[in-house]
Amino acid sequence: MVTAQPALIGIDWGSTSLRAFLIAADGKVLQEHAAAKGASTLHGHPAFVAALDEVTGAWRAEYPSLPLLACGMVGSQHGWLDVPYASCPAGSTDLAAGLRTPDDTLLAIVPGVLCDDGVLPPDLMRGEETQIVGALAHHPALADSCVVLPGTHSKWTHVAQGRIVRFATHMTGELYAVLRQHSVLGRLMAPEVAPSDDAFLRGVAAARDAGELGLPHQLFAARSLGVTERLPHAVLAEYLSGLLIGHELRAGLAWRTAHGLAHQPLAMVGAPALCERYQLALRHFGQPAGLVLDNTAPAGLLALARAAHLI
Amino acid sequence: MVTAQPALIGIDWGSTSLRAFLIAADGKVLQEHAAAKGASTLHGHPAFVAALDEVTGAWRAEYPSLPLLACGMVGSQHGWLDVPYASCPAGSTDLAAGLRTPDDTLLAIVPGVLCDDGVLPPDLMRGEETQIVGALAHHPALADSCVVLPGTHSKWTHVAQGRIVRFATHMTGELYAVLRQHSVLGRLMAPEVAPSDDAFLRGVAAARDAGELGLPHQLFAARSLGVTERLPHAVLAEYLSGLLIGHELRAGLAWRTAHGLAHQPLAMVGAPALCERYQLALRHFGQPAGLVLDNTAPAGLLALARAAHLI
Repeated sequence: MVTAQPALIGIDWGSTSLRAFLIAADGKVLQEHAAAKGASTLHGHPAFVAALDEVTGAWRAEYPSLPLLACGMVGSQHGWLDVPYASCPAGSTDLAAGLRTPDDTLLAIVPGVLCDDGVLPPDLMRGEETQIVGALAHHPALADSCVVLPGTHSKWTHVAQGRIVRFATHMTGELYAVLRQHSVLGRLMAPEVAPSDDAFLRGVAAARDAGELGLPHQLFAARSLGVTERLPHAVLAEYLSGLLIGHELRAGLAWRTAHGLAHQPLAMVGAPALCERYQLALRHFGQPAGLVLDNTAPAGLLALARAAHLI
Repeated sequence: MVTAQPALIGIDWGSTSLRAFLIAADGKVLQEHAAAKGASTLHGHPAFVAALDEVTGAWRAEYPSLPLLACGMVGSQHGWLDVPYASCPAGSTDLAAGLRTPDDTLLAIVPGVLCDDGVLPPDLMRGEETQIVGALAHHPALADSCVVLPGTHSKWTHVAQGRIVRFATHMTGELYAVLRQHSVLGRLMAPEVAPSDDAFLRGVAAARDAGELGLPHQLFAARSLGVTERLPHAVLAEYLSGLLIGHELRAGLAWRTAHGLAHQPLAMVGAPALCERYQLALRHFGQPAGLVLDNTAPAGLLALARAAHLI
């Protein structure tokens, strides 16, 4: 067996964590390091230099000529270097043109993307653009599609001719976290979540059928379901998760239709367990399940390194 | 001038605070005591007895025959005594029939109200039913009306023939608090709120015109408005307030129409500054301003004491 030669050191550098990849020319991840060195936990140039050395130093010693490319919140105003956003429509070429490098380093950082039609408030992503590029690299059918990235700040993205033309972010995961930890609803919940597809799907159905009732009402109603013991406290967190993901799907599917994407492919990119939850909810909306992809950042970083002629 | 004789010691005993009133037979509040002795801050029968003595002891020494009546979270499962909810439709007679008294005390506690049509999740109130009874005592035209009680958990109430027939709660105030204190949106805000009707009404308009976009998206968009400096950080809290109140009004007004109340009187009961904010938002929805009432709990307690033949 011949070991593939590494072509790139790629880093998915988010707010709270960092994953570094030694990537072969065919996209294979040869080695991986993870560290709790998120961009929001580091302050000042030397701290970022030290974190970069920690996770990539051994690879750079062994392969000194490899380029380094990072995506994510490391490029934000609270990260290492505030890399200006690329504007929609944004594809690989646009993103590659926007790479920036902190002084005295060899690391290039991918820009985030700004969606601004001049009518609605603007929307922002950092890191997801690279995952989308990675998804498209392996699945050319997604060149005209709807790509959903579930998470703390879920993104619904309209991709046309291989470029991100618009997107909408939903604060789903963050709402779940703050309501669990800090609300009267959360105080009613059991400390440990008892997994329950039934409670989750009850929440999804409540969102789907909400009519004009609205989420702020349904959040209080979730508490009332607990107080009146119509729903065991142990599964209230699952109901809340279903309610919030259901509201995201409701808005996201309407957005998808409004932009003529109802018959385009739908792909979900993210942690498999979370994507499976979204797929379950999607079926409850009567929608066919889409493609699910995990960890597309390395493929995206490789594609962007090529587009920028770093390799 | 003849000083009116007191007829009742009434207590509005909520989760976080307590207000006690010495009430005359004509509804006039002769004296008032407030204390930071909310029901959620007290644990066990002796603590409640001590708090009651502290705020009413002097009055009881002077007027030993006066009845005592309390409303609010003191009657919840986390309060002094879990007083069973009255079911909708609930008027003064129904509430008076549900009074309960903790052992070895002279205090009667008003039940909360349960709204349960068997289709939607149930909804709950404790304390607001007494404020509604008080509003009706002074304004007979509200016997068939929509009464809104803005706050941490805003209530929209359908009153028919003087009874609460249904209601819907919106977690507006609590969402504002948890998002300000614990979200990425809150972290972007200035520590002090700069009052701005303009930013508030921009938030109201965003909610009014949201279409299917949904609140979780608009919360992230509010952050993006801050990050891209389309909205000064100093007024982001006002925008958030407008967005949340706007979503409540949007849902509440649709609910009002769905229940045939669009042409009935609309009254708001609550703190004047908050009600004024709601009125401002209401006008932005093209709705005429309603009646605003403050501190109707004493009148409600008096009416319920009469209905229960305590006086």
